[in-house]
Amino acid sequence: MTDLAAIRAAAERIEPHVHRTPVLTSRFFDERHDTRVFFKCENFQRTGAFKVRGAFNAVLSLSDTEAAKGVVTHSSGNHGQAVACAARVRGIPAWIVMPSNAPTPKQEAVLGYGAEPCLCEPTLAARESTAQQIIERTGAHFIDSNDIPEVIAGQGTATLELLADAPGLDWLVTPVGGGGLLSGAAVAAAELSPSTRVVGAEPAGADDAFRSFTSGEWVPSVNPQTIADGLLVSLGRNHAWPIIKRSVHSIVTVSEDEIVTALRFVWQRMKIVIEPSSAVAVAALAKLDLADKRVGVILSGGNVAFPE
Amino acid sequence: MTDLAAIRAAAERIEPHVHRTPVLTSRFFDERHDTRVFFKCENFQRTGAFKVRGAFNAVLSLSDTEAAKGVVTHSSGNHGQAVACAARVRGIPAWIVMPSNAPTPKQEAVLGYGAEPCLCEPTLAARESTAQQIIERTGAHFIDSNDIPEVIAGQGTATLELLADAPGLDWLVTPVGGGGLLSGAAVAAAELSPSTRVVGAEPAGADDAFRSFTSGEWVPSVNPQTIADGLLVSLGRNHAWPIIKRSVHSIVTVSEDEIVTALRFVWQRMKIVIEPSSAVAVAALAKLDLADKRVGVILSGGNVAFPE
Repeated sequence: MTDLAAIRAAAERIEPHVHRTPVLTSRFFDERHDTRVFFKCENFQRTGAFKVRGAFNAVLSLSDTEAAKGVVTHSSGNHGQAVACAARVRGIPAWIVMPSNAPTPKQEAVLGYGAEPCLCEPTLAARESTAQQIIERTGAHFIDSNDIPEVIAGQGTATLELLADAPGLDWLVTPVGGGGLLSGAAVAAAELSPSTRVVGAEPAGADDAFRSFTSGEWVPSVNPQTIADGLLVSLGRNHAWPIIKRSVHSIVTVSEDEIVTALRFVWQRMKIVIEPSSAVAVAALAKLDLADKRVGVILSGGNVAFPE
Repeated sequence: MTDLAAIRAAAERIEPHVHRTPVLTSRFFDERHDTRVFFKCENFQRTGAFKVRGAFNAVLSLSDTEAAKGVVTHSSGNHGQAVACAARVRGIPAWIVMPSNAPTPKQEAVLGYGAEPCLCEPTLAARESTAQQIIERTGAHFIDSNDIPEVIAGQGTATLELLADAPGLDWLVTPVGGGGLLSGAAVAAAELSPSTRVVGAEPAGADDAFRSFTSGEWVPSVNPQTIADGLLVSLGRNHAWPIIKRSVHSIVTVSEDEIVTALRFVWQRMKIVIEPSSAVAVAALAKLDLADKRVGVILSGGNVAFPE
């Protein structure tokens, strides 16, 4: 069970290792929409994404005995780098399972943190069985990217900071993929700012959270198609989904064109580099009643593959 | 004559209208080079570049009688937008002379500030004669982009802020094109932080400041070739050059490849959007002895044309 106390404990635990990211505003956006938006810049976070919050909280929560055997996860993206980074800080081995077609820079990033990339076939089944083999061989502890309380509490620290820097939010929007960021936000806001309506933003081409929320029953992500590659995974069923079902106000979906338009706006006008998954939350703003409101948006990360 | 008092007066004059931009650091860069670099983020400045500092100072320094007839300048880039913005705030007309092949977004940006883009042939002679015709017709006041004391004092306010936020700099690096930013930096540092060595960074393909500095005689920019399109203009001969000759430590040139590498570093690692002219200053860092030093870099702007 993740509650505000767990998020506060996570904040204390990870504080020496993660950045307190800045909150930016855009006069242009605010004037155009008669609103006040506070952008929480997790693109400036260590490793370039909010994922280090949950990864550090999970890795630092292990007992010394558990930690000694190392950690394992499967992710070719931000969570993989985050776990590798946290493991290095704790001084324990890390195995990061990633598909054999993962881009070289992503493998190099993991190597750069002293972790071991473990390549497998690009299917969920192969990723899971490869991770399982490593666990059996090494006794390493598995760090799920979303669906464990330590990760949800860690991601909730982003909202803790945002609500401190921008109190009295009417809306709080985060992207939703596996649901760690959104469920953490919902837990933090529910206690700290109950009048804040927490909204998940999802690509229409990967709308399992929307369909779960609308039907009231968890459904998996099947054949998702979106440039927001951080949001392809299914909603975490055991921990993230029950929180989202209970505490989130709504899930808003956006088209690929809307994502690109939002991406372009942030790069061009705000002069910061965000990844498409972050732009999903910005795109969702157009679907909300913003007039005269105070709005928080979590820009989840800034890891983009630039052409060589 | 531009001195620290003029820069302080400029700072007070423009304060209500420009942003106090943040100073960012990069742990990655600092650890790799055993240094401490402070990046002054003028890419987050109003209109996306430091140019509003000088433009506001110049436009606000006009008497009411002078101002009533409006202002004119020739620039298809950041200075044109800056003058248009300052004129709108002062409530006076502005004519921005730009070449007929200037991209539509640049014309629209000027229009967006309520100023009038005046298209001419893409030559310096045509720009100057078009501006002259407007002056004769309207009595408008010409706001040079670099070579007037009000602009130099205005640009110097960026260094005033940087030295307040990051005192005790060993090096201070700015790009040099027309020389307004560099000469303003040199004036501010000479009085506030005499031990700071002020360095101009210039593309090797547009190295008139380097050649002027090396020979001791002003030489114009002839057929410059660089992606750093903000640095094509000649060094301002009457005001900027004498200051640079007297007070700047050195001019460092960088290749186009070095500019691109620096641009990529800032976008990828620091997650902020800068324009190539800013990357010139970052590229120049590789030519300096950084070990154990405190280094200031002015990231001059972030206006990049994104593909549609």
